Amino acid sequence: MNGLEPGDREGLRRPLEWAVHEETWGAHPGGTDPLDEALTAVADLDPTAGAAAARERLTRMTVPPGALGEVAEVGVQLCGLAGACPPPLPEPAVVAIFAADHGVHARGVTPWPQEVTTQMVANFLAGGAAVNAFAAQVGAEVTVVDVGVAVDLDPAPGLLSRKVRHGTADMTAGPAMSREEARRALVVGVETARDLVAAGNGLLVPGDMGIANTTASAALVAAFTGASAEEVTGRGTGIDDATHARKTAVVAEALARHGLARSPGEGRTTDPLGVLAAVGGLEHAALAGFLLGAAALRTPVVLDGVVSGAAALAAAAFAPTASHAWVAGHRSVEPAHTLALAHLGRTPMLDLGLRVGEGTGALLAAPLVAAAARALAEVATFDAAGVTGKDEPAPARGGPP
Amino acid sequence: MNGLEPGDREGLRRPLEWAVHEETWGAHPGGTDPLDEALTAVADLDPTAGAAAARERLTRMTVPPGALGEVAEVGVQLCGLAGACPPPLPEPAVVAIFAADHGVHARGVTPWPQEVTTQMVANFLAGGAAVNAFAAQVGAEVTVVDVGVAVDLDPAPGLLSRKVRHGTADMTAGPAMSREEARRALVVGVETARDLVAAGNGLLVPGDMGIANTTASAALVAAFTGASAEEVTGRGTGIDDATHARKTAVVAEALARHGLARSPGEGRTTDPLGVLAAVGGLEHAALAGFLLGAAALRTPVVLDGVVSGAAALAAAAFAPTASHAWVAGHRSVEPAHTLALAHLGRTPMLDLGLRVGEGTGALLAAPLVAAAARALAEVATFDAAGVTGKDEPAPARGGPP
Repeated sequence: MNGLEPGDREGLRRPLEWAVHEETWGAHPGGTDPLDEALTAVADLDPTAGAAAARERLTRMTVPPGALGEVAEVGVQLCGLAGACPPPLPEPAVVAIFAADHGVHARGVTPWPQEVTTQMVANFLAGGAAVNAFAAQVGAEVTVVDVGVAVDLDPAPGLLSRKVRHGTADMTAGPAMSREEARRALVVGVETARDLVAAGNGLLVPGDMGIANTTASAALVAAFTGASAEEVTGRGTGIDDATHARKTAVVAEALARHGLARSPGEGRTTDPLGVLAAVGGLEHAALAGFLLGAAALRTPVVLDGVVSGAAALAAAAFAPTASHAWVAGHRSVEPAHTLALAHLGRTPMLDLGLRVGEGTGALLAAPLVAAAARALAEVATFDAAGVTGKDEPAPARGGPP
Repeated sequence: MNGLEPGDREGLRRPLEWAVHEETWGAHPGGTDPLDEALTAVADLDPTAGAAAARERLTRMTVPPGALGEVAEVGVQLCGLAGACPPPLPEPAVVAIFAADHGVHARGVTPWPQEVTTQMVANFLAGGAAVNAFAAQVGAEVTVVDVGVAVDLDPAPGLLSRKVRHGTADMTAGPAMSREEARRALVVGVETARDLVAAGNGLLVPGDMGIANTTASAALVAAFTGASAEEVTGRGTGIDDATHARKTAVVAEALARHGLARSPGEGRTTDPLGVLAAVGGLEHAALAGFLLGAAALRTPVVLDGVVSGAAALAAAAFAPTASHAWVAGHRSVEPAHTLALAHLGRTPMLDLGLRVGEGTGALLAAPLVAAAARALAEVATFDAAGVTGKDEPAPARGGPP
């Protein structure tokens, strides 16, 4: 693995995570790169056989037909992704929080100072945020990936330094980043997914941190769905009416500037990289790569809120089949999230009025995804359990049905 | 504890669960019994102080105000129950599956033979049912309580024999059971809750098994809410139109026979014991006692579907304050369950189209309840984490908000 020869003791002494990543980080021999490789692998994803096997097994399990509701549907999806029934148990979960700053913050779209991005990264690393509590509940590790925080961060355990640039530019004044930067952020996401799967994780959770990132999310969802600025712009962390009006105008301005104000009938976006570069965040691009990387490795993802939802639209525009790897964890209160889920054709497992971000809603859904797999793996069949089926001839005692 | 003297080595050699229970089972010195004791203890339940402490802490946590949605509300409820913030972590969870048969089965309300109750008990004990898979996912033990299965069951590990009678009588021909039998089943539930809490469990999950028990549930919900037979009668395990019509007529007949056909304006039922005896199941009565016993011990419960929902209406009729201990785990597809939740004033955490019973939906919600407690215990405050609050003066870099 990783090109290490048996005698390469220098390499063998490295921690797995470091070895897997650093051996190839930035070095892509043969002209391919991790994003291209992921897109190639995703193109082969065909859930038909695994899903059919799951539906057949569901008919024989000691549960009334159809009684597992959405849990059964998630189980079918996991089997489709794995190409087998039962699917592997999607554990442990791990959350990768992609952190970045946003030039559009200068337009007054939020009352929170930009420094809070960095302060919250420190809070994640100290274990003090909501995402840490929810991760602890489900036994998930927390990794923070600096893909574009505005200031330089000191090295710390649990922090991966993958900064593509120091925050985006203001999307209303020009592109948020260059196409090349967006691509580099995508590769960061692909490689993060690869490393976390290589480390033995069975379920990937996309997390995010970036003051003003619901503004970029709204613009992305508008661009990918054709919805208007008014339809996509929400209240994020809980902004007042005046700030909401300003934020909506800023989103509209950005869409107009980049020729992305569309109508729902106008058809699919053919340039997702261009959309990410124009109005995205570095964390959105990295998350899109993360979602593609997971799909390439046939590893399930639980989508979180509007930030990962916007990234999922971008990733699906690159490779529609990748969405077979993604379970919608929850519905946040952001209107753009509901639009994104509808565009992806997904029903969220939870609808709890959350708007925390960070990966919190997805972490809450992680045990439900694992339970879906476990049901297919562990529930006995009617035959094996000696349970009489519905409408079978009843023995003496019960009386006629 | 339990009246054991230091020298009582015979008693000390007994397993905790056995000693706690068998010392007092059926023997109630001083004229009180566990149900009366539970009702007395529940009457003192006042969530005001604990809930206020939780709401104060929520304002200081490093989460945007209101962003935790329903999870915060569950946290407030747990603090109210505990009288403290943070509340104890509600772990481990344990599910008690109360199993019983129903005389109304003879009226053809389901295509499943009555023997399936016994067969599914064996499946639970062998670990092969959906409830076992979901319990394993959340680290919960499974206990089966035979409170009224129609046939005698062989002793088995994990099975508590607490049979009050061999199934109920047909509720359309007379009372399903006597008032004394209903009371004995209630005591079984109170004592089961007491024993499971004594054994160290922090979250109680009510489970149920009993072919035809959605028919009894429908009748109970009608009696306690004033809804009609048409409104409460659902398709249970998935019955056809003809069976559904027959089931609805049977529910209407039972309500009429016992003078329980009411209108929503008619006010509260003043005789919950009489209602349970008339149209309930032995598992419903035991579950009502279980819910009261948990509240008496300030131990949270996650309610499951329509069977525990119907039992919760009965328990709340005995002691309205007990409901402070109950979190609504999920909404099942049974219409009576939605009516029961509305009557209890509860919003379910999950809405996944489940109709399995057994405690499955509640088990899926158990990690969410634990996460709510964990958030209050583990999330840092803005001050402690050094995170700048919304609208605080921003340092140089971020620009004006």
